[in-house]
Amino acid sequence: MRKQKAALVTGFEPYGGMNLNPSAEIARRMDGAKVGGVSVVGRLLPVDIAKLDAALKDALADVDPVAVILLGLAPGETCIRLERVALNLADFPIPDNAGAKARDQVLDRQGDTALTSRLPLRTIEKRLLGMGIPTRLSESAGTYLCNASMYWALSWLPRRVPCGFIHLPLLPAQVAVGLESGANPQASMAFPVQRRAIEIALALSLESAAPKA
Amino acid sequence: MRKQKAALVTGFEPYGGMNLNPSAEIARRMDGAKVGGVSVVGRLLPVDIAKLDAALKDALADVDPVAVILLGLAPGETCIRLERVALNLADFPIPDNAGAKARDQVLDRQGDTALTSRLPLRTIEKRLLGMGIPTRLSESAGTYLCNASMYWALSWLPRRVPCGFIHLPLLPAQVAVGLESGANPQASMAFPVQRRAIEIALALSLESAAPKA
Amino acid sequence: MRKQKAALVTGFEPYGGMNLNPSAEIARRMDGAKVGGVSVVGRLLPVDIAKLDAALKDALADVDPVAVILLGLAPGETCIRLERVALNLADFPIPDNAGAKARDQVLDRQGDTALTSRLPLRTIEKRLLGMGIPTRLSESAGTYLCNASMYWALSWLPRRVPCGFIHLPLLPAQVAVGLESGANPQASMAFPVQRRAIEIALALSLESAAPKA
Amino acid sequence: MRKQKAALVTGFEPYGGMNLNPSAEIARRMDGAKVGGVSVVGRLLPVDIAKLDAALKDALADVDPVAVILLGLAPGETCIRLERVALNLADFPIPDNAGAKARDQVLDRQGDTALTSRLPLRTIEKRLLGMGIPTRLSESAGTYLCNASMYWALSWLPRRVPCGFIHLPLLPAQVAVGLESGANPQASMAFPVQRRAIEIALALSLESAAPKA
Repeated sequence: MRKQKAALVTGFEPYGGMNLNPSAEIARRMDGAKVGGVSVVGRLLPVDIAKLDAALKDALADVDPVAVILLGLAPGETCIRLERVALNLADFPIPDNAGAKARDQVLDRQGDTALTSRLPLRTIEKRLLGMGIPTRLSESAGTYLCNASMYWALSWLPRRVPCGFIHLPLLPAQVAVGLESGANPQASMAFPVQRRAIEIALALSLESAAPKA
Repeated sequence: MRKQKAALVTGFEPYGGMNLNPSAEIARRMDGAKVGGVSVVGRLLPVDIAKLDAALKDALADVDPVAVILLGLAPGETCIRLERVALNLADFPIPDNAGAKARDQVLDRQGDTALTSRLPLRTIEKRLLGMGIPTRLSESAGTYLCNASMYWALSWLPRRVPCGFIHLPLLPAQVAVGLESGANPQASMAFPVQRRAIEIALALSLESAAPKA
Repeated sequence: MRKQKAALVTGFEPYGGMNLNPSAEIARRMDGAKVGGVSVVGRLLPVDIAKLDAALKDALADVDPVAVILLGLAPGETCIRLERVALNLADFPIPDNAGAKARDQVLDRQGDTALTSRLPLRTIEKRLLGMGIPTRLSESAGTYLCNASMYWALSWLPRRVPCGFIHLPLLPAQVAVGLESGANPQASMAFPVQRRAIEIALALSLESAAPKA
Repeated sequence: MRKQKAALVTGFEPYGGMNLNPSAEIARRMDGAKVGGVSVVGRLLPVDIAKLDAALKDALADVDPVAVILLGLAPGETCIRLERVALNLADFPIPDNAGAKARDQVLDRQGDTALTSRLPLRTIEKRLLGMGIPTRLSESAGTYLCNASMYWALSWLPRRVPCGFIHLPLLPAQVAVGLESGANPQASMAFPVQRRAIEIALALSLESAAPKA
């Protein structure tokens, strides 16, 4: 019996002392939903470089996805940020949740220097901007676990599967909590807008993969 | 016959080449609403220093308000920004809509150097943060028309009337339109959140003015 | 015997976990120098609100200055920042060096809401920009000890004495030390440029006070 | 007769409406100097994508360099910014000096997605920070001509030749001129500091290439 076609949306658990991560919230709430007639499986990834590859491999093996959108948080970001490229590099600005702090490490010794997104980025950008949602393409997904998840997923998946990474702004409530304890003000984006943006990005990615009639 | 008690909420018309101003939208949509049992009158103010004082004077005379919240846009701002103080100074970074560019001018030759907000700022800050809305106090309302409206309203109104100025972030759609034409990304806040914040600020301001039983 | 005429330049001791403060370095190195034929007395002020007023009063009484330039550090600032106005307000974003964290306090119960700089700000701005030194006027000196020193000095000195506050950027070495320990990159300005700017600001301030022939 | 060994330092001509480019100044002034016993050839590159490849090819052919440092300006940057990676991508945020505005174009149809710097970046970073010069590694050289020059030079040169790109902050005088005409304040770095940093980066790059005794 053939498995039902499904799309994978991943988020990361909270990190860096925060108790919330919008990417986790979106992955959790989209789990079980349907987008463009395709079931969505939402999965949480650990902010722990030693466990990330296995967790991601498991998710890809379990779901055998027709499309993959990996999500992560970029504190201070103002836009839905569509990553163009993942680097074969781990160089952590802060330790991960297990205390590891990679420095100048490659993610794959035999791997390419960089891999490019397989999502229809310009189509997504145009659609979201047309809806009034701040959106931009980015040339760097950083060198933390977000970039690692993007690099590994792109290197493991067959090229025909749309796959890429989208960075999300902080949620307003995260900024508010920070301000209460004396942190600096930071940009944010409302959760329903973030979630809507990702649903549309996924729908457009599924369309981009569909065989033309 | 006594006029019905009313609160005044003002916004500014669009300026600086933009076709939208969240402060105008909020003033327009709150016009006719009730907050804390008090009718709201929403008024639009001109971004024209030569006409601003008369327009503001007319609005105050017409409404005879029990509370006044003046609103304006602060591009790039991340928070609901509660202004603490207005300066007796006009020094425009960009021309107003009539092309005037005040430089180092006083707003009132006999006036004080500065006037402080008469809104319950800490109460508003605490409530909004508690609701998860990014909010902060600010020591400078700038030296453009926002500051001028705050200074004049505070100097003309009796001290018992709660009155102050709140700066608003850009709307997401404004940032999106900018990005479409090559502008830099900027922070934004969703309109419903902005409006809700102002309704609460007004309700708390009305409470602060109410005679204690 | 009459005392020799002297100008006062003050700096603040390091604070906020830093081991350096450009304002202290400039005050220390200008101490004993001559600017425009006038001796300079450089003094260090404590980052301790409980001791600041006495230290400042002593300095003013000792020197009986013909001009006063108060200096302080504004981390992240890109320019020589000429403060226009001091507020009658202490509201500390971080504790001072003695652990005090003023909140919404007035500096002088009988004092004005704000006092304006008595330095020739536009003349200084024009001269420094003409020399290629990034310089700007500012509407807010903050609500920390910098603002307090400016407010008190302006309120105690006779109006004929040029007096004002200038905020300085970080020194390059401070940013470098921060980067070594994982802090974010911040703007800086070379020490010789900072010092030259303050000498010129003082010379122009002394000229502005000189009786016209 | 064998040519004398030489290192190549390139800068870009002014662009984007500016009349100065620190990278051009450094290339010009280092031309003819000696660093680590090696002659430096300084060359100016055109901000014109149609001419850049030929100009760069000519420079490399003329000099047959033992080390190459390509320089460019990053307005707003606070640090000597050592680029880790060049992307096979041209996507211009503003037109080049000939009016061309590349969009989503590859630089080399057969080329790798990305090429990494062959300068000893961590050694340079450590040395410069130790000297008090703000310095940082960067994961993105942008998608303008700076990135193109880095990508092409890395793809054309043999791997044994140290080669990489360094982004420079604005010069203080550039920021001052901008402020005079109403532009926003921006970070800057003094010219002698920038030049010293590049000389050291070149010296360390030459050392990194030297055969160990």
